[in-house]
Amino acid sequence: MAGIIEGNLAKLGITLPVPAAPVANYIAYNIVGNLLVVSGQIPFVDGKVAFTGKVGGAVSIEQGQEAARVCFINLVAQVKAACGGDLDRVKRVVRLGGFIAAGPDFTQHAVVMNGASDLAVAVFGEAARHARSTIGVPSLPADAAVEVEGMFEIA
Amino acid sequence: MAGIIEGNLAKLGITLPVPAAPVANYIAYNIVGNLLVVSGQIPFVDGKVAFTGKVGGAVSIEQGQEAARVCFINLVAQVKAACGGDLDRVKRVVRLGGFIAAGPDFTQHAVVMNGASDLAVAVFGEAARHARSTIGVPSLPADAAVEVEGMFEIA
Amino acid sequence: MAGIIEGNLAKLGITLPVPAAPVANYIAYNIVGNLLVVSGQIPFVDGKVAFTGKVGGAVSIEQGQEAARVCFINLVAQVKAACGGDLDRVKRVVRLGGFIAAGPDFTQHAVVMNGASDLAVAVFGEAARHARSTIGVPSLPADAAVEVEGMFEIA
Repeated sequence: MAGIIEGNLAKLGITLPVPAAPVANYIAYNIVGNLLVVSGQIPFVDGKVAFTGKVGGAVSIEQGQEAARVCFINLVAQVKAACGGDLDRVKRVVRLGGFIAAGPDFTQHAVVMNGASDLAVAVFGEAARHARSTIGVPSLPADAAVEVEGMFEIA
Repeated sequence: MAGIIEGNLAKLGITLPVPAAPVANYIAYNIVGNLLVVSGQIPFVDGKVAFTGKVGGAVSIEQGQEAARVCFINLVAQVKAACGGDLDRVKRVVRLGGFIAAGPDFTQHAVVMNGASDLAVAVFGEAARHARSTIGVPSLPADAAVEVEGMFEIA
Repeated sequence: MAGIIEGNLAKLGITLPVPAAPVANYIAYNIVGNLLVVSGQIPFVDGKVAFTGKVGGAVSIEQGQEAARVCFINLVAQVKAACGGDLDRVKRVVRLGGFIAAGPDFTQHAVVMNGASDLAVAVFGEAARHARSTIGVPSLPADAAVEVEGMFEIA
């Protein structure tokens, strides 16, 4: 509760949501050895997808960044559950995968995904410097504007 | 041959195909430690792609689910080869990645991907509860409607 | 310097670029145990994206293959940095992920991605036979025609 990462979240004014439980035969994360693999998260806020549509279309770059930020918050909520509540067990954000719903002419995927990457560093510090792949997609589940998946190293 | 997972497959009436050999300088799977990484599988049946086109377009949701199911069967065939024929060596389906060929307005990606996830649990039981990322794509190799990749933990 | 892989690169007439430094809060690679995860690379040549647009549209299949080849060269440059300069530490190319910017009617993703896979084998030999997932995407960062990410096992 008084952990370093929880302190960072508090300073950022971030309250982690109750991690969303997948409503199907898959789960939110899996752990193999010290590798934590977290399912792709969409920008759920209070049980609703807060950002829908295409970035560069109905969704602005800034809104896309905010969507990526919310996806990362949802990832952290899952990581916390995976770590038995202790986020200080996170040794490294190994990789983030960013999926940006966008049209053929969109080019600012990296700028949008920075919404997740910048928050990662704000929360986890140097341990958050991660490998990253960012791509455009025509559509995402529930018309989400952004989806972010993550791989973490945990102690 | 008389393994638990083979028994599950038999009960489901599933005969595993001869695993498709990639026709290029890549292979169907790789093993690092106890981690088995399997190449993206498309819905090949008897050497032909059984489901082509876009889900939500020429391909219905139900056909998309069946395509995802076939992709998972093809994954299992590769896993069996990787395990030297013994599927009971599978300790965990760690992650499935689902790629659904669809247009910008499609939103039912998760429902389609359940075709793979539900079969995973039917075949592997609790060991099959996996992390998952599902996204839309404009097009896939050979006009496949669905592609599914997998990561497994093996003994 | 006189390593086997460096020799292969020299025979192929490939000079590795200075690895591109990401301009944001992410990094080019991460190592967990013996697993090296490299960020998605786009076909940067001398600081410019050498292949932009859609494969099958403004970008021909052959140009797409060349773009995939350049992405793989950029991956190798990152791998070299990750290995402290010694590419002979690469034990296996575990997985390549290929993202091909293309329209809904494109079907030759695998042929395009062979540009990366064929070079992988030319450079790393048998150690390069990798698992692979290749998909289409509507758009990529900076309008890149191809993006390739990689996972490697290193000694």
